[in-house]
Amino acid sequence: MIHISRAINRRLFSMERLRLTNQQEVEATLASLNIPFKTIQHPEVKTVKECLEHTGVFAGKVLKNLFLKDKKGKFYLISAVHTTETSFKTLAKKLGSTGGVVREAPEEKLTELLAAVPGGVSPFALANDHEKQVKFVLDKEVLNLQHILLHPMTNTATTEIPTEGLNTFLHHIGRDEDTLIIDFSAVEEEKKEEAKKAAATEEEKKDTTLGLSCTQEENYAQWYSDVITKSGMIEYYDISGCYILRPWSYEIWERIQNKFDKEIKELGVKNTYFPMFVSEAALNTEKEHVKGFAPEVAWVTKNGETPLSEPIAIRPTSETIMYPAFAKWIRSHRDLPLKVNQWCNVVRWEFKHPTPFLRTREFLWQEGHTAHATLEEAAVEVRQILDLYASVYEDLLAVPVVKGQKSEIEKFAGGYYTTSIETMIPFNGRGIQAATSHCLGQNFSKMFNIWFEDDSKEKKFVWQNSWGLTTRTIGVMVMVHSDNKGLVLPPRVAPTQAVIVPIFEKNKVEEVLNKSREIYDEIKRTGVRVELDDRQNYNPGWKYNHWELKGVPIRVEIGMKDIAKSQVRIVRRDTGKSEFVSWAELHTLPALLEQIQADMLAKAKQNLDSRVIKASNWADFLVALNAKNFVLTPWCQRNECEETVKHRSAEESKQTEGDHLTGSAKTLCQPFEQDPIQEGEACFQCGEPAKHRALWGRSY
Amino acid sequence: MIHISRAINRRLFSMERLRLTNQQEVEATLASLNIPFKTIQHPEVKTVKECLEHTGVFAGKVLKNLFLKDKKGKFYLISAVHTTETSFKTLAKKLGSTGGVVREAPEEKLTELLAAVPGGVSPFALANDHEKQVKFVLDKEVLNLQHILLHPMTNTATTEIPTEGLNTFLHHIGRDEDTLIIDFSAVEEEKKEEAKKAAATEEEKKDTTLGLSCTQEENYAQWYSDVITKSGMIEYYDISGCYILRPWSYEIWERIQNKFDKEIKELGVKNTYFPMFVSEAALNTEKEHVKGFAPEVAWVTKNGETPLSEPIAIRPTSETIMYPAFAKWIRSHRDLPLKVNQWCNVVRWEFKHPTPFLRTREFLWQEGHTAHATLEEAAVEVRQILDLYASVYEDLLAVPVVKGQKSEIEKFAGGYYTTSIETMIPFNGRGIQAATSHCLGQNFSKMFNIWFEDDSKEKKFVWQNSWGLTTRTIGVMVMVHSDNKGLVLPPRVAPTQAVIVPIFEKNKVEEVLNKSREIYDEIKRTGVRVELDDRQNYNPGWKYNHWELKGVPIRVEIGMKDIAKSQVRIVRRDTGKSEFVSWAELHTLPALLEQIQADMLAKAKQNLDSRVIKASNWADFLVALNAKNFVLTPWCQRNECEETVKHRSAEESKQTEGDHLTGSAKTLCQPFEQDPIQEGEACFQCGEPAKHRALWGRSY
Repeated sequence: MIHISRAINRRLFSMERLRLTNQQEVEATLASLNIPFKTIQHPEVKTVKECLEHTGVFAGKVLKNLFLKDKKGKFYLISAVHTTETSFKTLAKKLGSTGGVVREAPEEKLTELLAAVPGGVSPFALANDHEKQVKFVLDKEVLNLQHILLHPMTNTATTEIPTEGLNTFLHHIGRDEDTLIIDFSAVEEEKKEEAKKAAATEEEKKDTTLGLSCTQEENYAQWYSDVITKSGMIEYYDISGCYILRPWSYEIWERIQNKFDKEIKELGVKNTYFPMFVSEAALNTEKEHVKGFAPEVAWVTKNGETPLSEPIAIRPTSETIMYPAFAKWIRSHRDLPLKVNQWCNVVRWEFKHPTPFLRTREFLWQEGHTAHATLEEAAVEVRQILDLYASVYEDLLAVPVVKGQKSEIEKFAGGYYTTSIETMIPFNGRGIQAATSHCLGQNFSKMFNIWFEDDSKEKKFVWQNSWGLTTRTIGVMVMVHSDNKGLVLPPRVAPTQAVIVPIFEKNKVEEVLNKSREIYDEIKRTGVRVELDDRQNYNPGWKYNHWELKGVPIRVEIGMKDIAKSQVRIVRRDTGKSEFVSWAELHTLPALLEQIQADMLAKAKQNLDSRVIKASNWADFLVALNAKNFVLTPWCQRNECEETVKHRSAEESKQTEGDHLTGSAKTLCQPFEQDPIQEGEACFQCGEPAKHRALWGRSY
Repeated sequence: MIHISRAINRRLFSMERLRLTNQQEVEATLASLNIPFKTIQHPEVKTVKECLEHTGVFAGKVLKNLFLKDKKGKFYLISAVHTTETSFKTLAKKLGSTGGVVREAPEEKLTELLAAVPGGVSPFALANDHEKQVKFVLDKEVLNLQHILLHPMTNTATTEIPTEGLNTFLHHIGRDEDTLIIDFSAVEEEKKEEAKKAAATEEEKKDTTLGLSCTQEENYAQWYSDVITKSGMIEYYDISGCYILRPWSYEIWERIQNKFDKEIKELGVKNTYFPMFVSEAALNTEKEHVKGFAPEVAWVTKNGETPLSEPIAIRPTSETIMYPAFAKWIRSHRDLPLKVNQWCNVVRWEFKHPTPFLRTREFLWQEGHTAHATLEEAAVEVRQILDLYASVYEDLLAVPVVKGQKSEIEKFAGGYYTTSIETMIPFNGRGIQAATSHCLGQNFSKMFNIWFEDDSKEKKFVWQNSWGLTTRTIGVMVMVHSDNKGLVLPPRVAPTQAVIVPIFEKNKVEEVLNKSREIYDEIKRTGVRVELDDRQNYNPGWKYNHWELKGVPIRVEIGMKDIAKSQVRIVRRDTGKSEFVSWAELHTLPALLEQIQADMLAKAKQNLDSRVIKASNWADFLVALNAKNFVLTPWCQRNECEETVKHRSAEESKQTEGDHLTGSAKTLCQPFEQDPIQEGEACFQCGEPAKHRALWGRSY
């Protein structure tokens, strides 16, 4: 940026006169200065937020322009990135305004001095301030932008120009010299707070300008929100905790469905659909179970204006909906095993702060429910399903997982035992439950009276399992792979695996376009899901950002130079590495995609493995935990002990430096693959004899 | 049955003595008489209904056994089919009891005279009535049954024997001579009423005995309920209007999904998922529209014990949920057309009597929503989709449909115009709307402010369509094809297309089984979805009924005779026709399945075509309508006229003889394919100039 501000100072001379009062005059001037510009017309806008509703097609950022006055009657025009914090307090401080007071200048002054309309003011208006009565103040942050958006003397249109073009313009009207460039970043902290709050507001959610508004490091929550909204995966919705799954994410869910659905059908599972509604009586049949969900259950109490005779619950899960039917269907051992599954929506009205994909009040999942004659048979299936879940994550989403069994405290309410797959969010080291496969034992069969007659006509209760995989899968995938450029999609689930971006040149457009189409057909023939971005209203740079944001694994660039060499330039989204590939070698793209898939998994696995730390005592445990790791410890398996760990880990971490390090740790699982407990090995926390090794972490 | 009752009278002699007090003794006696029997143990049952909970595995019917006493102190044991109407009034009449009074006999008499326990009495107990103090009365209907179910002197078990076996037993204990056989069918009418009421009760719904309890002609509602429950398509649920879709029906829905989903994706439609919940504000945005659904909307007002700040509706359809997002996504003509679809559940809390598949309070559907730059483009899509819907019915479900446009009164609330496909339920001639494809015009885009800029930067509202297909498809298919043996499935959607039933013979079981397995592999190789029913606890007859009830298109029988001739016997479910096919010709089965598919459609089409009657005046209209037809008439297209037709058709049909002929007629659609209106042609009802031809009918 220093380079650019110097540039401004170097242009002291030219003092041409000019007057700009409408869009045409602005555009004419820009044209005359060879400043490239694009203008979009829109309804009258009075605020930046309204403006953002219409400028999504632009790569540049909207500038907010403030016309101010200080106590001494001095006027200022402030142009700042719309996200820059510019309270009057800050401005006064920054402007060194005597008395530290600045306020909005009266509208008539706006017209008198700058010939501008309210809401339509911008640096362009400076062209009308020949007496230099208005001090121009530019947010230093602006100089970091490639493109900026300004109103061309009207608030019914917005014009995009390269930031460099602003310098050219200011120079042209002789206002570059006295431009005051201010660095607001000193108020970075305030700004972050601001952004956090803003993130929660509907308006910010609707911000659809291209590019992420912050990095993971700056504000992880905001970064995640940006990645999933700007990539086109999620649209926020006006009911808290509910989100719109757009095609870019739903197609990933469809790929997960196709794989898993095929596999369970091979296991003899049949798809069904049970009602979404459950009567209070049925819901309450299994007490332990209902306790686990009661506070989160949504109740329908009226239709139209008519109150229902008794309230009806919406399923948080379907055990209590399905099992009365199981009791009817199962009579003899010949009716077993009974294996059904459904793909559906469920509702859990959680109070915790909702997060798209990870914690939502309505979500999509499959729930499998099976009944078996013996515990042995049920137990085998529990692990078969868990393996299929692991395969969804590792083979489709390139996310490594740890398989294990839940502790008594963490297991499914009303179940016998719970197995799960767990993984880590690399940025903050938090654990997240990726999927669960429960053995329900006979708890439910006894409550719902589901029994059968064995060969010897003896009456026996069935052994049951239930298992579920949700759209959380997608959120985990996003958090594990994505970066500060946006989404990074594993090729096997990417809706688009490769995008072709033609690099047009004057008079060569047709030539490049035709060759691009040939390349497109060529690649399509290899079975790759390919798109050709032949839009001519966006430049290649914009398209690069656009498709990187959307996480497309491979970008294929082709311009005249490449055509001359019968090649294309291939850029990998995951590594950013690029290489030239001759047209004759395009058939290797499928192999490259598989390579990318493998590399993404390997990278994630390397990270996870390196962050599972072994600890045998409390001190080591706490250090490892607070360094954003999972900790594997010998454990006594006692509930009291886990409760103590939760309490201590929270208490004793309060003083620790760094972010994301507070909160209590819990058992994620007891991994199936672990070294046997040695003779005399003690629990890391309480010192009681260890029974098993547990994997601990802070979790979502 | 006359034959059988004679059989009873022929066996006057044998007068052996015997005492039966428990299950063992009963079974020993049956064995000694070479009467084949099967017994199932179950918890103690006090009523027939409780008994039905456990006897679904049997082909036979449960008999109810009443121990009664009349005024003169005469005792009776009545054994009747459990569905036979046997009020004391009827009994008294039938028994010719003086004073016409019969009542339940005291329990101690039950023990004293028959050595039976309450709830466990049956004809077996007659063995203990050596003084013949108890008159045995047998429902004539019993003699029409193949098998009957009786308690073997205990109400914790049920025994199935061939009806012929009862005669053998009665003869053996010397009670065949004085058995009084009564025909209750004189009370047929009462019985029907009874059955109708019963159909509505939860208990009857749960009846899972094999075989339909009545014919279409006897009680259409009950027949339909039997077909879908006993075939394993539907399980009733304890919340009215909600039903369980079992694999036998859900797999058909999956086949519909696979076909249609693939076709709309080829049209560029992308799948999404929008929240199920909608705020009151959003729901109310389009007034006309919401009026159409308001009374049927289910409202969530609390979660757990906490009331929501404002009630949230469950989608009856998603226009008002999706379109605010459309307004954000659509900015320029380059964002058009926007085409999204979702497969989901919706809730319409209708007050009309619910019918599984046809009218349910929660149902599954797909809803497509698209936005276009021009009406022309939208209009083209409306018809493309309608054609795809027609193809689902005609090519998959073998159900012929009529394509046309809805009248103003019948169109979608808030829409511009509605097209639909309509078909007829053959039994009662009622019309049923099979699917709808709506052009919404700009009504919604203006309400939700969905506009774009065309090339000339002019702001224009988009033109929208929405279209939906529901699980109603399955109910229509059931009603169009099924018969009094049960379901008849079109091969293309049948979960199982062919079932192999081995006919076992003593000492030849293995041989038949092995060959059956070879045949199974053979057929599987041809791509046919085939099952081998190798269960040895059911006889072939039971299996024939079972698979006919489930509507499997082809039955493949193979016994020793067939093996000798290297052939199988093939029986078509749709026609009942059978033929022998040599093993070498098994590869022709796919062709046969396609033939069955074609024949089913042709048959249904022939019926529909023959029942679309043309009428040009009211008299002819009413006659044709009341003869269970659709009526095609010249029409003025005025709302008042349609209202009048509704009123008149209902009023003037009240006197007409026959069933299903009351109620008002309405326009089903105005068929796209129709003869042009002639110069001076008048509306059939009001005489105003006719504008178009309308298809009228009574509808579901």
